[in-house]
Amino acid sequence: MQIRFSGFNQQELARRETLFHVANGYLGMRASFEEGAPEGVRSVRGTYINGFYDSAPIHYEEKLHGFAQTQQSIVNIIDVQGMDITLDGEAFSCFTGTLLEFEQLLDMRQGVYTRSLVWESPQGKKTRLVFSRMASFDVQQLLLMHVEITPLNWSGSLVIASSQHGDVVQDFDLFDPRKASVGKKMIDVTETAWAEDSLMMVAKTTQSGLTMASAVTHGISHPFRMEYRSQGEVNEAIFSGDIREGEALALTKYCVFTDERRFPDPRAAALRLLHEAEDLPFEDWVNRQTAYLSDFWAHAGASVLGDEGLNASLTWSMYTLLASAGKDGIGNIASKGLSGEGYEGHYFWDTEIYMFPFFLLTSPDLARQLLLSRAAMLDAAFEHAREMGHEKGALYAWRTITGSECSAYFPSGSAQYHINGAIARAFLTYWQATGDLDFMAETGARVLIETARLWMDAGHFYKDQFRIDSVTGPDEYSCVVNNNYYTNRSAQDHLQGTAALFRALEQAGKQGTVQKQTGITQEELAGFERAARAMYLPYDEGLGISAQDDAFLTKARMELGSIPEDRFPLLLHYHPLYLYRHQVCKQADTVLAHFLYEEGVHEDVIRRSYDYYEAITTHDSSLSECMFSMMAARTGQTEKAFAYYRASAVLDLEDTHGNTADGIHAANMGGCWMGIVFGFGGLRLHREGLVFRPCLPEELDGYSFTMTYQGSRFRVDVNREDIHFALLDGPGLDIQVYDRQLRLTDALNLPLHG
Amino acid sequence: MQIRFSGFNQQELARRETLFHVANGYLGMRASFEEGAPEGVRSVRGTYINGFYDSAPIHYEEKLHGFAQTQQSIVNIIDVQGMDITLDGEAFSCFTGTLLEFEQLLDMRQGVYTRSLVWESPQGKKTRLVFSRMASFDVQQLLLMHVEITPLNWSGSLVIASSQHGDVVQDFDLFDPRKASVGKKMIDVTETAWAEDSLMMVAKTTQSGLTMASAVTHGISHPFRMEYRSQGEVNEAIFSGDIREGEALALTKYCVFTDERRFPDPRAAALRLLHEAEDLPFEDWVNRQTAYLSDFWAHAGASVLGDEGLNASLTWSMYTLLASAGKDGIGNIASKGLSGEGYEGHYFWDTEIYMFPFFLLTSPDLARQLLLSRAAMLDAAFEHAREMGHEKGALYAWRTITGSECSAYFPSGSAQYHINGAIARAFLTYWQATGDLDFMAETGARVLIETARLWMDAGHFYKDQFRIDSVTGPDEYSCVVNNNYYTNRSAQDHLQGTAALFRALEQAGKQGTVQKQTGITQEELAGFERAARAMYLPYDEGLGISAQDDAFLTKARMELGSIPEDRFPLLLHYHPLYLYRHQVCKQADTVLAHFLYEEGVHEDVIRRSYDYYEAITTHDSSLSECMFSMMAARTGQTEKAFAYYRASAVLDLEDTHGNTADGIHAANMGGCWMGIVFGFGGLRLHREGLVFRPCLPEELDGYSFTMTYQGSRFRVDVNREDIHFALLDGPGLDIQVYDRQLRLTDALNLPLHG
Repeated sequence: MQIRFSGFNQQELARRETLFHVANGYLGMRASFEEGAPEGVRSVRGTYINGFYDSAPIHYEEKLHGFAQTQQSIVNIIDVQGMDITLDGEAFSCFTGTLLEFEQLLDMRQGVYTRSLVWESPQGKKTRLVFSRMASFDVQQLLLMHVEITPLNWSGSLVIASSQHGDVVQDFDLFDPRKASVGKKMIDVTETAWAEDSLMMVAKTTQSGLTMASAVTHGISHPFRMEYRSQGEVNEAIFSGDIREGEALALTKYCVFTDERRFPDPRAAALRLLHEAEDLPFEDWVNRQTAYLSDFWAHAGASVLGDEGLNASLTWSMYTLLASAGKDGIGNIASKGLSGEGYEGHYFWDTEIYMFPFFLLTSPDLARQLLLSRAAMLDAAFEHAREMGHEKGALYAWRTITGSECSAYFPSGSAQYHINGAIARAFLTYWQATGDLDFMAETGARVLIETARLWMDAGHFYKDQFRIDSVTGPDEYSCVVNNNYYTNRSAQDHLQGTAALFRALEQAGKQGTVQKQTGITQEELAGFERAARAMYLPYDEGLGISAQDDAFLTKARMELGSIPEDRFPLLLHYHPLYLYRHQVCKQADTVLAHFLYEEGVHEDVIRRSYDYYEAITTHDSSLSECMFSMMAARTGQTEKAFAYYRASAVLDLEDTHGNTADGIHAANMGGCWMGIVFGFGGLRLHREGLVFRPCLPEELDGYSFTMTYQGSRFRVDVNREDIHFALLDGPGLDIQVYDRQLRLTDALNLPLHG
Repeated sequence: MQIRFSGFNQQELARRETLFHVANGYLGMRASFEEGAPEGVRSVRGTYINGFYDSAPIHYEEKLHGFAQTQQSIVNIIDVQGMDITLDGEAFSCFTGTLLEFEQLLDMRQGVYTRSLVWESPQGKKTRLVFSRMASFDVQQLLLMHVEITPLNWSGSLVIASSQHGDVVQDFDLFDPRKASVGKKMIDVTETAWAEDSLMMVAKTTQSGLTMASAVTHGISHPFRMEYRSQGEVNEAIFSGDIREGEALALTKYCVFTDERRFPDPRAAALRLLHEAEDLPFEDWVNRQTAYLSDFWAHAGASVLGDEGLNASLTWSMYTLLASAGKDGIGNIASKGLSGEGYEGHYFWDTEIYMFPFFLLTSPDLARQLLLSRAAMLDAAFEHAREMGHEKGALYAWRTITGSECSAYFPSGSAQYHINGAIARAFLTYWQATGDLDFMAETGARVLIETARLWMDAGHFYKDQFRIDSVTGPDEYSCVVNNNYYTNRSAQDHLQGTAALFRALEQAGKQGTVQKQTGITQEELAGFERAARAMYLPYDEGLGISAQDDAFLTKARMELGSIPEDRFPLLLHYHPLYLYRHQVCKQADTVLAHFLYEEGVHEDVIRRSYDYYEAITTHDSSLSECMFSMMAARTGQTEKAFAYYRASAVLDLEDTHGNTADGIHAANMGGCWMGIVFGFGGLRLHREGLVFRPCLPEELDGYSFTMTYQGSRFRVDVNREDIHFALLDGPGLDIQVYDRQLRLTDALNLPLHG
């Protein structure tokens, strides 16, 4: 369970900073070198707190009513990565001298990233340096850095200047016209101090005025002198002494970060947490991290046989999802996790559609935290609905940190009302998979009802059909359309599910809270159900497929084969109107609807729709290929499914989109896991229970995964011949495998079809 | 033929600056006071050259491919309005002392604006001051200012400091959040000099780098001393001497402006033109102006009987159209004419649909200049088409000065492809009304063919229909729709008309030039005709009306009656998506199509469509009511037509939209004239010739208008009983009146219907 890269090329610095970032859902730190990088080498030195943001007004040349007014951006916070090491008078840097050995390694059992190297200085002195880091899953405000220094052919002086920098700026790139060419400063330091034997720094975001604190202390194996220095926005602890050939010096840097969104007094909290943390040596923290992860893997384990690269991608995806997900009911999952500043650190529907299923079926407690984070945004969703002209209901922001809309181009932003459906689906599947009716009574039902009301206000009856006009579906190459199949199907499920939940709450006598919260009436619920029944789901008789929207299939079809390769992704080469005018898809849209909501749709319609839309889909979004993989598997095209899967799974590790340096593609990580479980494993969450339709591509020898559903944890192993279900904990459950209804009480063995 | 306001209220300063601006199609100067206005009084002191612009990059928070990149703005140029008058030691200002008399008057026979007043100084000295101005129609670079000063109860010293200011800024308003709060400077002065007995100033726009020159000299009735001063960006000529009670001193300020878009050496041209101008005294220039206008009124005269206010509006509208229209084949007509900076001085389809008909039927030579101005933008239209993804054809910019797209919100900007149809219609009706086949051979055919090609590329065949998807029609409350009836009808006419023109050129043996220019083939022309025949024109069988677009009539209908009055105009209170989702119209769209293209449409469809769309139209655009007036007249609702007409005609004179201070509504001026000729007069330009269907609202006693068609100038008089046609010049022509075909050779008298 390792990701390992040997050797070092400075062109790869920024990409590896992403790949080896450490994070725990609250904190994220990119794997920049402790010693820094020279000017001219692309490096994004960044540390982030989930949901800690600065804001700025959005400027429009032509502003219309209701346009999003305020941008929010994740903040590059106080930088504690710095450790300047002077070895017998020579400053260590990977960019000088000679690297005799160099390896970067992420150990996903331990949750520790290590950079090990042997450096020969310009004067020929050889030293082994091993830098380790972890973002603690136990104490999420804690980040640990560790360095072990062993002189190999010398003895002499050693100086380590460990710093805390407040003069940080956001990512910029002199050479990329799409990025800022000057780093914007989003925090101002308000205090630098040596407080209670720690480096203490407090800072405030420039516009949003949010306070954060950073407290740093050290543990060192040798009796070195320590000196504290502070100048401007930099604090330093400087350790100096002598060291002998062959002897290993170890320094641990305990770094705590806190922020005002979680702690009323971030400074005091940081000091308290730091003092608690420094009592344990680094090794003990590693052991605690290992124990945490051991439990995680026991619940979330999944692997493929016969392709080590893919297996590593799969493991890394699961690990990174864990590292990216907010676990405190405030932070959600940014589209780049906590690995970079791409997409401003915003939360999208990516969370609910691509990542939530992983948590739901492996760590339902974490899934609930993600739901709480959305519930906390409900007030902002009310406001957003009003801005968009709705008199009732709540509309979640398309992209946001706190809940307010940050999309500056509404046709592929706020118009994506389907985010309401995605959030509803997360709540409904949580209820289904956990049976946690109390949570639904207190929290879930309110979110579901208020977001369902939005559909009732946005849609209308026309000739006995319930229609939803002027919204954008998942495919951003067709914006502001009428009756997007995906959106309508999602709204239908949402309305039905909300009514069903309320009936269940009534039966359990738990409807009181939500009635008080929302004033929901039987009449209104009946309205939900009536709209759901009458929901217009465009269908083309001639083609026998679901139509992406009212007009999509009447538009000119873009022949993708005739477009030169250098014109992709299309959005960088065609005006949006041109794309809107054509049958062309950026990503799965109707195909995604058939993935999520297959019940009641004829197999032939699913298959024909897949074929039709596949031919006009460019996969210009990283959210697309994983879906096509799963639906290729669903429609019996196992080899095609594998090709899509592979392309999707290695996206970041092989940097196939060329922008991993800016951060991971978190949704795709979810897709990587789903590709096994929902793709080859063929899992679907039907209202009546779980359905599996496993298949196995030729390229693999097998795969396995562990999941938990309604309190039963079980493992599924698929190999060339058969499918093995083994109950690990819990009461057991009814499942459907292909067309057979079975009960899993202990173990089941079934032959593999196809 | 006068517009006259007596008395003065400082609240009205900015509005009257608009109403009394002087302009000639090249220059425009707002009627700011020579002596200035104190801080805190809203004044927009501005002088403009048609088409003289500065540019700036357009910033987008989320920029997609092909978005317009560069803004263009009309420039507030060097200010020569200043004349500081010191009367026996006291500085004259309308804002001090007492105004015993005050009148502002625009004489539209002379083309001169006059501010006459009697001022009592704080010390009790009374003086009559008469300020006059004109923008010469003969020499368009020439602007004349004149002041006559008569001491009424004193004798003593008189000083006049006449200035030329280069430190001008664009309009700003500290108190209006929609406007800049700091004036942006768009010109830098590069030379101030006393050159050849003139104040000379040369300036360059800051971004576009265009040069302009201003040259000023004076003529004075008394042998006063003259002193020249220059400091910073201000030149002054200071006249001083003594004056006696009852004696009138007259000073004429000759002001010439030139610019690089018209003159290779603006400085030299300005001096040359100034020297030519100063040879004539002010009175002679007034006489020349009067002669010019006498000819204009002889061709363009129109009046209503029985409502002096409306008659003044009508006269002023025609006069202002003349004053606003570019006459050099470079300048077009900005939506605020040359009276202000609203809409950045951009040209829109307003020109072709709302203003061109006036010139076409009264001053075809000026109409041709407007066409030449569009022809000069053809290269930019090619570029714009490529930006929008079209491989062939030309697409005119929705808003522009030089031809490049300046719309920063494409759904109600660049998506309005119907501007191509509007421009095509102007060329085609020019051909029809003048028979000027040579112009069409050299210039018009090329524009028509290249813009027609755009339709062929934008549209496509689907099940034997030619469809045009993803465009916006005139109604900006429904954006990016499929098969907008107006657009498709306009494209159909455009394609048919272009083919017909080419056949006519072939018959006359004049097709060679355009064949060389465009490479047009018989096959391609046949394609135009095939698309025109197959054009999809949405029609609702149930309602029996033309459908605004494919989906419009299936959307939820907005009940305008239930919306509180303070929510209008809707665009200031509803998010665009909300409006797009509803059946609600900002302005005439399908109704406008039935106005322009009525041939072949059943009377009942026109009438039912009018009724249907009227109920959901807010007239939030100033382009709407005049159309509804004309179509109410067309559908026999004469009294309703009058109500709309009145509302529209007084828009600026009564400031009913509250923003006349920012500039006139030029399109509405065209609408005011069209409301008589096309509205009550019932004129339509059918392919077969002119059709009249006159009616007379009860509120009026009659109306008359003069027009020229195919070389015949004639006058139409309508009164309560009958309609009188009188041929004034030319060979005579066939006309249709109601359903009768008649030939007008001398005069015709017919009874008035309805």
